[in-house]
Amino acid sequence: MTRPLTPTLDRIAGPADLRALDDRTLARLAGELRQEVISAVSQTGGHLGSSLGVVELSVAIHAVFNTPFDKLVWDVGHQCYPHKVLTGRRDRIRTLRQKDGLSGFTKRDESAHDPFGAAHSSTSISAALGFAVGRDMGRPTGDAIAVIGDGAISAGMAYEALNNAGHEGRRLFVILNDNEMSIAPPVGAMSSYLSRLYATGPMVQMKSLAEGFESMMPPPMRDGARRARQLVTGQGAGTLFDELGFDYMGPIDGHDMGQLLTVLRAARTRAIGPVLIHCCTVKGKGYRPAETADCKYHGVAKFDVATGTQAKGTPNAPSYTSVFGKALTEEAARDPDIVAVTAAMPSGTGVHIMAERFPGRVFDVGIAEQHGVTFAAGMAAAGLKPFCAIYSTFLQRGYDQVVHDVALQGLPVRFAIDRAGLVGADGATHAGAYDIAYLSNLPGFTVMAAADEAELMHMVATAAAHEAGPIAFRYPRGAGTGVALPERGEALPIGRGRVLREGSTLALLSYGTLLAEAQEAAAMLEAEGISVTVADARFAKPLDRDLLTQLARHHEGLITLETGAEGGFGSVVLHALARGGLLDAGLKIRPMTLPDRVIHQASPAQMYEEAGLTAETIRTTARRLLDREAGLISLPGRA
Amino acid sequence: MTRPLTPTLDRIAGPADLRALDDRTLARLAGELRQEVISAVSQTGGHLGSSLGVVELSVAIHAVFNTPFDKLVWDVGHQCYPHKVLTGRRDRIRTLRQKDGLSGFTKRDESAHDPFGAAHSSTSISAALGFAVGRDMGRPTGDAIAVIGDGAISAGMAYEALNNAGHEGRRLFVILNDNEMSIAPPVGAMSSYLSRLYATGPMVQMKSLAEGFESMMPPPMRDGARRARQLVTGQGAGTLFDELGFDYMGPIDGHDMGQLLTVLRAARTRAIGPVLIHCCTVKGKGYRPAETADCKYHGVAKFDVATGTQAKGTPNAPSYTSVFGKALTEEAARDPDIVAVTAAMPSGTGVHIMAERFPGRVFDVGIAEQHGVTFAAGMAAAGLKPFCAIYSTFLQRGYDQVVHDVALQGLPVRFAIDRAGLVGADGATHAGAYDIAYLSNLPGFTVMAAADEAELMHMVATAAAHEAGPIAFRYPRGAGTGVALPERGEALPIGRGRVLREGSTLALLSYGTLLAEAQEAAAMLEAEGISVTVADARFAKPLDRDLLTQLARHHEGLITLETGAEGGFGSVVLHALARGGLLDAGLKIRPMTLPDRVIHQASPAQMYEEAGLTAETIRTTARRLLDREAGLISLPGRA
Repeated sequence: MTRPLTPTLDRIAGPADLRALDDRTLARLAGELRQEVISAVSQTGGHLGSSLGVVELSVAIHAVFNTPFDKLVWDVGHQCYPHKVLTGRRDRIRTLRQKDGLSGFTKRDESAHDPFGAAHSSTSISAALGFAVGRDMGRPTGDAIAVIGDGAISAGMAYEALNNAGHEGRRLFVILNDNEMSIAPPVGAMSSYLSRLYATGPMVQMKSLAEGFESMMPPPMRDGARRARQLVTGQGAGTLFDELGFDYMGPIDGHDMGQLLTVLRAARTRAIGPVLIHCCTVKGKGYRPAETADCKYHGVAKFDVATGTQAKGTPNAPSYTSVFGKALTEEAARDPDIVAVTAAMPSGTGVHIMAERFPGRVFDVGIAEQHGVTFAAGMAAAGLKPFCAIYSTFLQRGYDQVVHDVALQGLPVRFAIDRAGLVGADGATHAGAYDIAYLSNLPGFTVMAAADEAELMHMVATAAAHEAGPIAFRYPRGAGTGVALPERGEALPIGRGRVLREGSTLALLSYGTLLAEAQEAAAMLEAEGISVTVADARFAKPLDRDLLTQLARHHEGLITLETGAEGGFGSVVLHALARGGLLDAGLKIRPMTLPDRVIHQASPAQMYEEAGLTAETIRTTARRLLDREAGLISLPGRA
Repeated sequence: MTRPLTPTLDRIAGPADLRALDDRTLARLAGELRQEVISAVSQTGGHLGSSLGVVELSVAIHAVFNTPFDKLVWDVGHQCYPHKVLTGRRDRIRTLRQKDGLSGFTKRDESAHDPFGAAHSSTSISAALGFAVGRDMGRPTGDAIAVIGDGAISAGMAYEALNNAGHEGRRLFVILNDNEMSIAPPVGAMSSYLSRLYATGPMVQMKSLAEGFESMMPPPMRDGARRARQLVTGQGAGTLFDELGFDYMGPIDGHDMGQLLTVLRAARTRAIGPVLIHCCTVKGKGYRPAETADCKYHGVAKFDVATGTQAKGTPNAPSYTSVFGKALTEEAARDPDIVAVTAAMPSGTGVHIMAERFPGRVFDVGIAEQHGVTFAAGMAAAGLKPFCAIYSTFLQRGYDQVVHDVALQGLPVRFAIDRAGLVGADGATHAGAYDIAYLSNLPGFTVMAAADEAELMHMVATAAAHEAGPIAFRYPRGAGTGVALPERGEALPIGRGRVLREGSTLALLSYGTLLAEAQEAAAMLEAEGISVTVADARFAKPLDRDLLTQLARHHEGLITLETGAEGGFGSVVLHALARGGLLDAGLKIRPMTLPDRVIHQASPAQMYEEAGLTAETIRTTARRLLDREAGLISLPGRA
């Protein structure tokens, strides 16, 4: 593969070098940087579209601000590839999102240029305000700059931060990267509002900038400054951001280096309080296959630079997501009261399949998990049957609403929890580690995990039929196991597990997709003369106490398996056994969970290996448990 | 006590009766209703100020809308006392907030007139939009009306809902109850914005209402309608709500029955899409002691109606909240990097004590827990030492931020978690039940609970000194135990518990304030000849494994104690024992936690009795465990 020629970029060791370049050279540098990012992502896959949209912005910010003393906080952080190239990580840019490579997001322990890590959206303004307070209280830190997309700024959290920052009135820079496209096209009134602002034509306002604009510019920039100055005198109507206490500047063309540098320099020189710079960009800018694709190459596999053709995996089975989407659509076809809610992830969650057939019954609420959950609760209270499809890690954003609006009221909201367990290249921030724990202790909740994609279909049917209270089912990212799929899912008996293999010495009680590893471990153990029972709990709540009692009474050892953190399924089992007196006479029980540490990005298989959740580690745990290996029981050491 | 004379109110069995009254009588009714509410709350205590502020509004909404077919959703719900009186619950209004009495909030299972329960703020618009969708999809439900305060509407969740409702464009009524006062005076740019709207003078806009306003009114109302019509032609500038897709009407005087009825009737008749009615009210209206008090009698004890003098309890000890506030202030005096964050609860959390001395270092972010947590994380990243003081139940609102921005980045944010465990009159929605579970499985977190107020002082000092990562400490509502307080707290050794009483048969391992009950139970058991060890774990994480191993090895039985739900401290202990092989040979272990059901409001003591967390139940559990009672081990039944 030929690498692009990048003579200017080759001279850049870090952002300080940018500040020695003239504006024309900075524009040339941006062009080279774009080619470098395309070349790198063609080898690694990743978030190409959003990174291409901020190439000029990345160059301009680093050229104007004194990073890393000034703190640059990228919202979500998936658009940070150009930033990483510029900030001393070019030599590793082709390791993006791979094991031991660069993270696909900003990450504090990767560089001083990543002062605040991200991956979930809409956190940047809050963090930047924290840095601004630190500066004002004498900490050795400079200006704080948040770069946030139009999708992310529509989340409640970003609004809370704008509201607080406007009130605080501290010097702070928020750059709104408006590409009218988050992952899917954004929805919501804020999005329409931004479009209207844009439609009114170019306008740059900043009260404190209205006078004497050109004089501060070096002669070559006077032209750009003059243009900008004309804009200042444009429309005087306050924007929504002005109402919230920000000086609003924009919209400006985020791919025009002259405009960017002029406005950023002016803002930096003159700002007293909070400033919002509305910057319009094109997702996928400068790479034709990305610009013309519907998804703007938001997240891509490795691809051929010349054609844009992405490498395709050859999955043996449909993805859990698509199986869910289809099963939900089938249930919706049978029951007109079924509706679905997604928080800006229609295709990520598979509800776009239902939306194609029943567009009026699928609600994309935007990046708004808090609202989405309670909106679903309201629909349930009105007698509808809402499926709330939110990734495990993002449902954390609606946790209080799950507790307060759904569980305490016993409302039958159905939670379809995709991306359960470890997720691969997106790393620790996207791990679905906590949902079993944070749902299983809510009164009246029914909590399930699918062992394979056929089970997922049954759980969709179970949830559709369940009117007695809230119900959730989790399933992982990626392809299913390839089992035969039924024509239609069948409602499962609530609180009943199933036994897949009967043995007498060791019991493996799996919750979710580790069932396959349990089966594999059982086969290995049987070959070694150990008789193994394998059971699928299906339900963490209500727990199948009969099954558990049988397993505990009739086996020498019991291992629980789950792709979740401590406090979840193993905890439910341990509490039930302890309260039932089943531990009194001794039970060799070992809960296997995700470990109590951060697991960084790699392939899911590599991550599970690191987590110690493989057939081989189950086998080892079992052998140790049964005293079949030396070094049997390690006494607990200090954490 | 003399009850007020309420001849009009006495004839009201339900909202339908209001619709037969003329407007003048409705105004008189409101006056009687106000007296009734004052009289009732003087006997029960409760949220008086906010209820007095919406007396006219409650009458007007029920008179104009067809409740309960139309769905009225009160945000937070603490202002619902007049609503409860009007909707068939007058006979029980003097049981407010008491065991087996009426809830202090709206509650679905209490009345068809409470279609959606509340207690946490800012959920009403989401729920109302759910009902509106239900109506549009043919469910038997009418209009949806959300009533939300100016504090609550500043939360991100409410913004998400406005954003989505504006986009949906469905007929929906949001009544903004603007009293410029939530619990404390509200903060944030939105609050200033509302004040500016108000300051611009009376203005009622509604595009679809601009014409033909009077003609639809019955003659007696023409005057009010004419006044309102004049207002319509007022300022044409779009408000922030217009920008979000709402028709904005207001501000109107929320105590002027004529204005209220006119505007509500007009809105009901004409609205096509979402309407926001900006209604200005006075918290505590019509009761002079409330109107003149700083807190506007937000939450009061029983009081004397004539004088407004509130009954005072005679606490033997300072409250945990005040001990925390003072200890924090002392630490802040020694370390200029200490800052504090509260989400609209400066006095509720005690940080107002620090704010008096160091006003620039205490940040009230408004009802904005998501932002508050990440803002604290940003300050920690800048090198400050933030204490984030949020009630257990409200920290659920910032759970994802705790995981994603604090834990995964290992930032030393200190979480001061007040209202841990059961809280009394505020009931189940305010219970601090889940924090132990949702924090103890986060990598790198240090998680503590104070057994008494002296321990709390030590934990404040421990948190101030702890730089190695995030740290949290929990403590309950109400008065401390009365122990002697040290001059200053001392940093505790991380991950070490303490033994308070040494015995040989049974070990009680307490986490938090059940230590007193453990001691009491131990004394009872010793009197019965059972030798008991009592230990205070102090830390759920890192767990004192040495202590745990000692307790497990040298006692016949072990009981863990916590005022939290399953999945918390008991789970940490059970996992450590299981993984360490300490259950292999048998251990009679019983985790005592909050039960898996909703515990309704009562006194905290009554609630703990119902929860089975008292000295007596510890004693009983111990006796059963040790086979000292008949009916020993009950086999686990099905849930």
